[in-house]
Amino acid sequence: MTIKLYDLCGRDAELRFSPYCWRARLALAHKRLRFDAVPTPFTGVPGIEDGGSKTVPVLNDDGRIVTGSLEIALHLDRAWPDAPTLIDGASGLSHARFLDAWTVGAIHPIVTRMIVKDIHDVLGDEDQRYFRASREARLGRSLEEAQVGVEALADDLNRALAPMAATLAQQPWVGGEAPRFVDYIALAPLQWLRVIAGDVPVEDGAVRGWFDRCLALHGGEGARAKRAA
Amino acid sequence: MTIKLYDLCGRDAELRFSPYCWRARLALAHKRLRFDAVPTPFTGVPGIEDGGSKTVPVLNDDGRIVTGSLEIALHLDRAWPDAPTLIDGASGLSHARFLDAWTVGAIHPIVTRMIVKDIHDVLGDEDQRYFRASREARLGRSLEEAQVGVEALADDLNRALAPMAATLAQQPWVGGEAPRFVDYIALAPLQWLRVIAGDVPVEDGAVRGWFDRCLALHGGEGARAKRAA
Repeated sequence: MTIKLYDLCGRDAELRFSPYCWRARLALAHKRLRFDAVPTPFTGVPGIEDGGSKTVPVLNDDGRIVTGSLEIALHLDRAWPDAPTLIDGASGLSHARFLDAWTVGAIHPIVTRMIVKDIHDVLGDEDQRYFRASREARLGRSLEEAQVGVEALADDLNRALAPMAATLAQQPWVGGEAPRFVDYIALAPLQWLRVIAGDVPVEDGAVRGWFDRCLALHGGEGARAKRAA
Repeated sequence: MTIKLYDLCGRDAELRFSPYCWRARLALAHKRLRFDAVPTPFTGVPGIEDGGSKTVPVLNDDGRIVTGSLEIALHLDRAWPDAPTLIDGASGLSHARFLDAWTVGAIHPIVTRMIVKDIHDVLGDEDQRYFRASREARLGRSLEEAQVGVEALADDLNRALAPMAATLAQQPWVGGEAPRFVDYIALAPLQWLRVIAGDVPVEDGAVRGWFDRCLALHGGEGARAKRAA
């Protein structure tokens, strides 16, 4: 039995930066599963498996194809019920859906404005053309104009992280007493930033402590990611 | 056995507007408990029971005093485990803590800037003096300057509600397939706005539908609240 995770990569195939793929990688590690994280450039996504997905992550679990990080987490909980839960029932699923919407709406856009040109610069030539065209259309400006930088937006990021700071002042993990998929949802944009920019400008002590503990989980799955800077 | 909930009121004792008290009222109704919602002005809070709380809600459950809406929900789940759960376990508690931090940080400040002078105007004389002094110190400006109004901030409110809109596009309640305490946390600032201003300028269809269903819950506990406007 083999598990393949199609994982976005840069010009350097070892550079893995996609926040959604990090969610899935950490979910697999959480279940203590061995998996092959297949390096996949943006322009390689249409060629994955049956070609049915426009985005990564895509999981091939012994022939079963699962697309999207939350669907992958739900699949892993169903397939490996004896390993520590990722979603933890109906309230956990509601929590994950809210965290997903909040993170993608409140944190991802700030990280995008911090590093979007730097992401471009680590891609292969064909991916650079695809990325520039698609992101400039989405952002309504050039990558050079869209990237404001890490330092300039550090205060914005810290303000946006306030609900996490308040939660982590009361409990060690976003998921409660143990890490859950919601931790990986929240970690993902910070790991994206860390891989591209080298570190994250997180000031709150509770959030910083949680971030470091997340990176150390599962034998340092997050910590040992190759960084571009 | 009697259950008393000390519930903030206006000059008109029937006017109950506090978002935190609404969380607790709906939690009690969720458990199908009869309770006496004792009208309490701001300046009456230090005189509640043992005088140990600076804020409402305060619950007196047959002599046991519980302060704070989340603590009240946890108490009710422990005391009435056979009625529908409010918190729903460890992941539900994590969800509630995050929703609390998010709502208080992202939604309550917008509602405050919509109606803070109008809240003042529905209070009794002594409460008006307390409210003006404490809120003007907190807001750093006069109530008249701080209140921007409902219409002027309607777009801000709708943008801020985006994570709820995304969640409610996937499931009927913030808590999942059934209402939970997280629904009352999310409802509370909108009910606060509705009681003071008469209605809420919520545009998203899924959020609007959820809001109306929340008001109708438990025999219309939320719907029949007296409104100032």
